[in-house]
Amino acid sequence: MLTGMKIAIIGGDARQLEIVRKLTEQHAQLSLVGFEQLDHAFAGATKEKIDNVDFSMIDAIILPVKGTDLNGQVDTIFSNEKVFLTEEMLEKTPSHCTIYSGITNDYLNGIIKRTNTVLVQLFNRDDVAILNSIPTVEGTIMMAIQHTDTTIHGSNILVLGLGRVGMSVARTFHALGGKVKVAASESEHLARILEMGLTPVPLNELESAVCDIDICINTIPHLVVTSPVIEKMPLHTLIIDLASKPGGTDFQYAEKRGVKALLAPSLPGIVAPKTAGNILAEVLSQLLQEEWQSRKEQS
Amino acid sequence: MLTGMKIAIIGGDARQLEIVRKLTEQHAQLSLVGFEQLDHAFAGATKEKIDNVDFSMIDAIILPVKGTDLNGQVDTIFSNEKVFLTEEMLEKTPSHCTIYSGITNDYLNGIIKRTNTVLVQLFNRDDVAILNSIPTVEGTIMMAIQHTDTTIHGSNILVLGLGRVGMSVARTFHALGGKVKVAASESEHLARILEMGLTPVPLNELESAVCDIDICINTIPHLVVTSPVIEKMPLHTLIIDLASKPGGTDFQYAEKRGVKALLAPSLPGIVAPKTAGNILAEVLSQLLQEEWQSRKEQS
Repeated sequence: MLTGMKIAIIGGDARQLEIVRKLTEQHAQLSLVGFEQLDHAFAGATKEKIDNVDFSMIDAIILPVKGTDLNGQVDTIFSNEKVFLTEEMLEKTPSHCTIYSGITNDYLNGIIKRTNTVLVQLFNRDDVAILNSIPTVEGTIMMAIQHTDTTIHGSNILVLGLGRVGMSVARTFHALGGKVKVAASESEHLARILEMGLTPVPLNELESAVCDIDICINTIPHLVVTSPVIEKMPLHTLIIDLASKPGGTDFQYAEKRGVKALLAPSLPGIVAPKTAGNILAEVLSQLLQEEWQSRKEQS
Repeated sequence: MLTGMKIAIIGGDARQLEIVRKLTEQHAQLSLVGFEQLDHAFAGATKEKIDNVDFSMIDAIILPVKGTDLNGQVDTIFSNEKVFLTEEMLEKTPSHCTIYSGITNDYLNGIIKRTNTVLVQLFNRDDVAILNSIPTVEGTIMMAIQHTDTTIHGSNILVLGLGRVGMSVARTFHALGGKVKVAASESEHLARILEMGLTPVPLNELESAVCDIDICINTIPHLVVTSPVIEKMPLHTLIIDLASKPGGTDFQYAEKRGVKALLAPSLPGIVAPKTAGNILAEVLSQLLQEEWQSRKEQS
């Protein structure tokens, strides 16, 4: 239980509502900033303007998945007001106050460092990344169905990378009847690909592996789908790049050659906001309970 | 090879192009009716107006999947002209001339009967129905992803029927991580469902099985998703009805109760026209070759 814990939830989309629901169930005391247009009321949660939040009393701050932009502005889907997270606000927080976001950037890192605050990047956690790969894969399936005139079943599919997302992509497209090759560089990954009944491709042999593929799904966050690789692909190949921006594909060359290449947006929040919110809510609730427990034991 | 065989392909959508491609490869002599706006030219295929076709010389007629409408009109995506298939045309054909379509209706049955012609309904064939279930399932996955805010993975899914489509739906949604129950009445189907690692539900116990489901996918072509069944479903349940029109769902009651129910359109031609066309082309090519071979042996 989080009875008595004061948490500020600043901005966010439908995913944040699952977090609010979960934390109010645990009896946390929530200040919701950027939720004025939300009709629903949650017991134990108060909608507030950011200027009215007493940061000296806040035990934890939860930001949206994106954190802030480079000017400190926080996305607020349920509000027309512009909300900024500033260094001054963090300075006022108690020393134990932890900030939670999905990812971070230079702005957020800067104010965190200058105010000596702790930031937890949820998307860096393996559990969150693996659970989030489930809606990501379903979004990828949707894109593959929408952007081809053939079935996934029977198609030649190349997955790049066997990390937290690549493993889920490879296994699911195989389960749908795709003929799946997976490219990786680590020998243990190549062994695992073989064990899974898929075709392993050493990453440095990519060029010869792409000559017959229908769909190429990249999960490696640096430039791997290069112009020499794209050049060897059939013209009808669909490239779906799941790596975080700017992806791992030479999009300019793909366009020049007429190969369709899509940089997937953040799929979990689009295709399954409720599931994606639940994933964050579960992990956050556990982290906050551990923190709250240890604070109570200290005091 | 179909060298010398004269075939009229009347109307149709992108799927028909795969058939044209396949049959010209086999050296059939094709009259294409309703394809004027198609830029692509196929060797051995001539675009013709229906009035110019010499039906006395035609060995086989291939209609679109839908056949004709109740007035005898044939859908033509690649033409603005209205094309009708009439009794007079069939009367002119040689006695061995066979008509191929996906499904039939009273009009088509009538002219077939009166002219003593043979009609092959491709969608009645088990092989076509099973192969077509592959794009149908992928279309169903797409609809499930688009119309829910949760993942298929982890959802409670009820499939009605373990026929040619139901089997593919059940297996694929299970492979995606759904918790799948399948309702059927035949004891051998209930045994197979158990063998597949899924939960069998006797069809007469449907009402008690729907209380916790997130997605209900019907493949049974008569009214099974009745108002008492819909009444027991959670309000967030999504019903996808794959049975041919008018489906097996009480759509009026679903709407009244606020349960979202979708009658799926003919999904193969929408989500994977190329694959769907290839399926028809493969089967047609084999049937026509058998027919042409036996005619040559007779003469």
